Amino acid sequence: MFRHNRRLQFEAKPEKPDPVYARKLQELIGGAFGEMTVTMQYLFQGWNCRMPGKYKDLIMDIATEEIGHVEMLATMVARLLEGAPSTAVTKMATADPVVGAVLGGMDPQQAIVAGGGPLPADSNGYPWNGRYIVASGNLLADFHANVAAEAHGRLQTARLYHMTDDRGVKDMLKFNLARDTLHQNLWLKAIEELRTDGLEDVVVPDALFDEEHAEHAETIWDLSDGAEAQAGGWASGPQPDGRHQFAYLLNPEPLGDLAMAPPPDPKLYDTYD
Amino acid sequence: MFRHNRRLQFEAKPEKPDPVYARKLQELIGGAFGEMTVTMQYLFQGWNCRMPGKYKDLIMDIATEEIGHVEMLATMVARLLEGAPSTAVTKMATADPVVGAVLGGMDPQQAIVAGGGPLPADSNGYPWNGRYIVASGNLLADFHANVAAEAHGRLQTARLYHMTDDRGVKDMLKFNLARDTLHQNLWLKAIEELRTDGLEDVVVPDALFDEEHAEHAETIWDLSDGAEAQAGGWASGPQPDGRHQFAYLLNPEPLGDLAMAPPPDPKLYDTYD
Amino acid sequence: MFRHNRRLQFEAKPEKPDPVYARKLQELIGGAFGEMTVTMQYLFQGWNCRMPGKYKDLIMDIATEEIGHVEMLATMVARLLEGAPSTAVTKMATADPVVGAVLGGMDPQQAIVAGGGPLPADSNGYPWNGRYIVASGNLLADFHANVAAEAHGRLQTARLYHMTDDRGVKDMLKFNLARDTLHQNLWLKAIEELRTDGLEDVVVPDALFDEEHAEHAETIWDLSDGAEAQAGGWASGPQPDGRHQFAYLLNPEPLGDLAMAPPPDPKLYDTYD
Amino acid sequence: MFRHNRRLQFEAKPEKPDPVYARKLQELIGGAFGEMTVTMQYLFQGWNCRMPGKYKDLIMDIATEEIGHVEMLATMVARLLEGAPSTAVTKMATADPVVGAVLGGMDPQQAIVAGGGPLPADSNGYPWNGRYIVASGNLLADFHANVAAEAHGRLQTARLYHMTDDRGVKDMLKFNLARDTLHQNLWLKAIEELRTDGLEDVVVPDALFDEEHAEHAETIWDLSDGAEAQAGGWASGPQPDGRHQFAYLLNPEPLGDLAMAPPPDPKLYDTYD
Amino acid sequence: MFRHNRRLQFEAKPEKPDPVYARKLQELIGGAFGEMTVTMQYLFQGWNCRMPGKYKDLIMDIATEEIGHVEMLATMVARLLEGAPSTAVTKMATADPVVGAVLGGMDPQQAIVAGGGPLPADSNGYPWNGRYIVASGNLLADFHANVAAEAHGRLQTARLYHMTDDRGVKDMLKFNLARDTLHQNLWLKAIEELRTDGLEDVVVPDALFDEEHAEHAETIWDLSDGAEAQAGGWASGPQPDGRHQFAYLLNPEPLGDLAMAPPPDPKLYDTYD
Amino acid sequence: MFRHNRRLQFEAKPEKPDPVYARKLQELIGGAFGEMTVTMQYLFQGWNCRMPGKYKDLIMDIATEEIGHVEMLATMVARLLEGAPSTAVTKMATADPVVGAVLGGMDPQQAIVAGGGPLPADSNGYPWNGRYIVASGNLLADFHANVAAEAHGRLQTARLYHMTDDRGVKDMLKFNLARDTLHQNLWLKAIEELRTDGLEDVVVPDALFDEEHAEHAETIWDLSDGAEAQAGGWASGPQPDGRHQFAYLLNPEPLGDLAMAPPPDPKLYDTYD
Ligand SMILES: [Ca+2]
Ligand SMILES: [Ca+2]
Ligand SMILES: [Ca+2]
Ligand SMILES: [Ca+2]
Ligand SMILES: [Ca+2]
Ligand SMILES: [Ca+2]
Repeated sequence: MFRHNRRLQFEAKPEKPDPVYARKLQELIGGAFGEMTVTMQYLFQGWNCRMPGKYKDLIMDIATEEIGHVEMLATMVARLLEGAPSTAVTKMATADPVVGAVLGGMDPQQAIVAGGGPLPADSNGYPWNGRYIVASGNLLADFHANVAAEAHGRLQTARLYHMTDDRGVKDMLKFNLARDTLHQNLWLKAIEELRTDGLEDVVVPDALFDEEHAEHAETIWDLSDGAEAQAGGWASGPQPDGRHQFAYLLNPEPLGDLAMAPPPDPKLYDTYD
Repeated sequence: MFRHNRRLQFEAKPEKPDPVYARKLQELIGGAFGEMTVTMQYLFQGWNCRMPGKYKDLIMDIATEEIGHVEMLATMVARLLEGAPSTAVTKMATADPVVGAVLGGMDPQQAIVAGGGPLPADSNGYPWNGRYIVASGNLLADFHANVAAEAHGRLQTARLYHMTDDRGVKDMLKFNLARDTLHQNLWLKAIEELRTDGLEDVVVPDALFDEEHAEHAETIWDLSDGAEAQAGGWASGPQPDGRHQFAYLLNPEPLGDLAMAPPPDPKLYDTYD
Repeated sequence: MFRHNRRLQFEAKPEKPDPVYARKLQELIGGAFGEMTVTMQYLFQGWNCRMPGKYKDLIMDIATEEIGHVEMLATMVARLLEGAPSTAVTKMATADPVVGAVLGGMDPQQAIVAGGGPLPADSNGYPWNGRYIVASGNLLADFHANVAAEAHGRLQTARLYHMTDDRGVKDMLKFNLARDTLHQNLWLKAIEELRTDGLEDVVVPDALFDEEHAEHAETIWDLSDGAEAQAGGWASGPQPDGRHQFAYLLNPEPLGDLAMAPPPDPKLYDTYD
Repeated sequence: MFRHNRRLQFEAKPEKPDPVYARKLQELIGGAFGEMTVTMQYLFQGWNCRMPGKYKDLIMDIATEEIGHVEMLATMVARLLEGAPSTAVTKMATADPVVGAVLGGMDPQQAIVAGGGPLPADSNGYPWNGRYIVASGNLLADFHANVAAEAHGRLQTARLYHMTDDRGVKDMLKFNLARDTLHQNLWLKAIEELRTDGLEDVVVPDALFDEEHAEHAETIWDLSDGAEAQAGGWASGPQPDGRHQFAYLLNPEPLGDLAMAPPPDPKLYDTYD
Repeated sequence: MFRHNRRLQFEAKPEKPDPVYARKLQELIGGAFGEMTVTMQYLFQGWNCRMPGKYKDLIMDIATEEIGHVEMLATMVARLLEGAPSTAVTKMATADPVVGAVLGGMDPQQAIVAGGGPLPADSNGYPWNGRYIVASGNLLADFHANVAAEAHGRLQTARLYHMTDDRGVKDMLKFNLARDTLHQNLWLKAIEELRTDGLEDVVVPDALFDEEHAEHAETIWDLSDGAEAQAGGWASGPQPDGRHQFAYLLNPEPLGDLAMAPPPDPKLYDTYD
Repeated sequence: MFRHNRRLQFEAKPEKPDPVYARKLQELIGGAFGEMTVTMQYLFQGWNCRMPGKYKDLIMDIATEEIGHVEMLATMVARLLEGAPSTAVTKMATADPVVGAVLGGMDPQQAIVAGGGPLPADSNGYPWNGRYIVASGNLLADFHANVAAEAHGRLQTARLYHMTDDRGVKDMLKFNLARDTLHQNLWLKAIEELRTDGLEDVVVPDALFDEEHAEHAETIWDLSDGAEAQAGGWASGPQPDGRHQFAYLLNPEPLGDLAMAPPPDPKLYDTYD
């Protein structure tokens, strides 16, 4: 069960409205790596976690924080849209280059649909959806997805940090950048700890090593011409899992037979003779 | 530019048809972590890579391999559907429990739309889409996404490995498992190498550390009741980036003011008094 | 079966082209509350209606009208795009602020895909889809959805009314506003009539009142801090259905046990110890 | 900012697993009228509310409760999947009618993707998305959408109530039914109160009545043959808004001119002579 | 403007219910090549047609017919679901192989969401969407898309024809098959007529032949190994447009330079040295 | 299995950056008729082709070429974005009309998500998805879809050709136009050849002519008022398939009975009396 405090986790007050930036910020709300993603990803991971204790509590701590991040961003977007020329007619936009530049860069749905507020969508107006998240029950696989989400989240925040000179917006982004730094470190640490605790190892899942075709777990196939990749640390030596060696296979040849679909059921009317 | 060899990278021949399993295998073709995802993710990352040399070549080597994995899976699905009771009428399904069990588990579009072949969709019939992939230009962020993709890919393959007892299918999956092992190790190694080469460090992006609010990069807020998370290695001590310490903040209080949207533009007819 | 008259239900002739506005109008064609939604929602409700008579006829009357509204909007969009600088090169846009403002606000697909015509999409270019509509077979539930659709439709139309000063466009919108007024009243009246006719009551569905946990049908849980909501008419007194009383529960505590997922199937490789 | 309590708002413990039902319950998690919808719809409405006080607090109270409903359903789904024949091979399904019936009715992604857990998707495996919700800033329009959401939510819950005979599942659904009863009454009451408070009236938005074409706000056009609709209370008499009369227009004729798109820009290569 | 006749264009009465088949028929309602697609594709093409006269009238004749086809299919689906074991509990499904087979093959949303009626979705429950259709303003391009739509429509209908032995269903499908035959012929004839009328030629659009690189309009590149394609009529001789010759290019080499993305903007934090 | 050559099939070098055009070009990468579509459509058709020989080889030759077209477009987009004012703040955009025009026309995700690179999406930022393609196993149906795809592809390319005056971009588009000319001719020729080879005839599928209701395969119903369509070659005379005659049916009347859904299952709570 959840409870809500009317105060924001951190302040979200721009110096002045900026409806062009309000569109860009949508990426951090409803983009593939926005706050709705980390909220829902961590909530479902927490609910799907099979062990009580430190991992489950950690996931739920962070998940609960992220709901509050959607709230901060949503509030910021509404404030950036205050007094925006949302209802300006085209004639005004073409008569005044400033209005023209602003209208060109706005998200029309923030006005028409949300009445000057945020949308559960990204900076191109595409709605957030449930296929953005994963909660597999395997914590190592999920924590890797979490590192990736926080890494792209901080990367996009850093890019957006340079697209404004509003001190209020930058102040909030400085908080977000810091949290994304922490969360990247956190999931990396948790990955280490899963190994220390003997719950998972390096490769996901920690199983089926005797069944898989071991000889194919070692060779990088040189399928794009040029062998510069051979200069990398991955071309020879031990693999991170400590079980395998790396090798670089030049001039690889297919191991299978011809790719061929079987004769069809005549009632399906596939072309066949 | 690409070229195609009519032989499969590895054999994909089931002992016998199994249309129920053909539906499940769709997850590895068109699911969020299926072969279409790694194909397109690596292709766009390779094309978006800003440096010639070992990283770009490595990405394109693996990307090109993955197109061939879609081909293997697509061929396997068509073969698993051979002679399937796709055109059976309901009366047959209800008269014969075997036919009933098979029809209940099939993907109807594999018959109606694809004529007994594979679809660019997942095991629930949802189409693959471009929001599944990321190619940000930042190799560290992208390689973390690649580790996550290979980890979930191998996890799903391992789960599917137990859902069949067909030796031909299992033989192909043993190859896939091995490649996913290699690719996980590979992207982990490449993450190390970006650091060794001085291109990236631990946190993505390697920038804005002086700007971000440093005091908020250290504390995990205990927002889900119970403090079991305090028992983790992330509750104190140095963070993986070597720059920060971890701390666990009990009884956290909001730092911001009331969440409040501003007065609306009257022409938008928001409720206001 | 349907028939078509080549004349529009109401005139849709702008004084002059306005490609920026043509993009915004897409919201009324293919948005979640646009004309495609009411068309398809009412058609499916009519086809799914189980009783011949006044309700079914009413739904089909309005449904059939709405197809003509898509036609009016589609015609208006094509006319607003006449002679638009769709094929202007960027150099022209950057040399001339008027062209720049227009190009910035246009939907590129109206030119590239539709050749200067309307799209089955909203003002952010997102396609209309079937999950926007509902036809449940329960007329009370559906009529509430219809009131909501007409309310948001008129609200968006009112917002768009202020974003143009073209007398031709405004003339058409005045018709649309009037129809949306009527249709809101109509579905509200039909909700009353379902009750008068003894077909449905206040709550959907009119069933299972003896089975549901009656004690939990009365209390609003104060889960967001601050008890201002207690000042509302919903904090005490009879509920609209005449069966229940309202109450406001301060300091609510969870009634369930710990949220915990069960031990996993080992073949699924969930993390577990 | 939000906080989380590890206990469920209400108990969610099935007597025994039922993986077929676990698929159906997905509708209440990630369907168009599921708990993710009411959670996100109310959160965005609360954040977009322009007035402090009873309405905003009410919305946030209910929004916060709904997050906990997603949690209850997610926990229930994981428990219904315990020990499910997720990893059964097809041969078992075809050999044993019970296993066949179960496998045919399962959601394969609950096993392959979520490791025996819930998905942010509906009962057909389609992901929840942000276009399901609306937060327009106009409380009357939004509360109508809320009534519709709760009405369809309770309707679907009632249908699902009959699809199980598990006393644990039914016990939770009895709680959900009761909350949906309350919430329908609540939003209906809030609609009344907006009027009492003079904030909104009957029609959304409460504006532009002098501008709209009044003569078209009264007549239902008989566009579907048969005039049974004339027997309804909507065919004459005052409309619910008290401003208009109803009328039923037999043999309606179009008021506009021919529907015709204008001559095209030659560089767009539309067919034209 | 449209009008509606309460009678179906053709009868849609099954001999008996068949809920498994009701799911499959969804493909013809809301699939990529279902009746919603041809309805909306032809409507938008008609509205986007720039010339009054025979083409526009033809398109609108067929478009208007197709709305009635959605109606026929929707009615058929509701009738196939009559008395379906929609509300059966899992225990019944596992106790009775007939019920098990039926439940496994049903679409759960037809019961839970539509109350035993049709959905605007395909046979995998994926909603119809506006990206399925095209109305480009170029009639030749659009008529080719129409031929493709009718071809796949008749193909899917033919496949579905074999999946039932219900004489009522088959009777309706015999009508649909005939209309799809006619419509394929019709669009093929209209393609001829565009050429006869001098409006379009063979290639779309009939323009830019002097600008395009003519030498690359003739050679098929042998990029998939094996030169069997050289045995086709397309390997030499005149092309259908009468302007070009066919040639088959063995051992093709790339004409461009290295694929390389440019140096990045440092503020975007792409990896670069 | 596939191999990759680092050189582009054809050069893709703009004279200078143009971020506004970079957004428009996305249509040719990830639009419904963009290069991702033809790549995936032809690959799945090739894999789903049931006959070794000239058709399968042809399909795979073209499919493999198309992957290289995505590569060309992706490279071009990255180059058009070089040095773009992606990170400009709004103040700069409103101060300088040139920057304003550019920012208004840009795709924000090309900067925020892709770091100045291409996206797997169209010019409105909507992601490519698998429902855009078809591979039915019936080559005639599929080749018609291929003609349509190449026709719309060349049409969109021709439109885009006029939206730039950059000689480098135009040079690449001249290559694309030529390939689209060839590919249209190619699939048209292949359609002829299927008939010559006796594999398919005119109508898809070449079956069920004796079963379908022949009398309904001849008449165009005049359902849109005005009989101009009667002036077309399709109103009388032989149909392209040589089996049927065309006729134009004036004043058509419905052949079916009333459209009516059956009585509902009471447990579904449809409204019924
Ligand atoms: Ca290489
Ligand atoms: Ca905690
Ligand atoms: Ca409160
Ligand atoms: Ca009527
Ligand atoms: Ca070849
Ligand atoms: Ca006509």
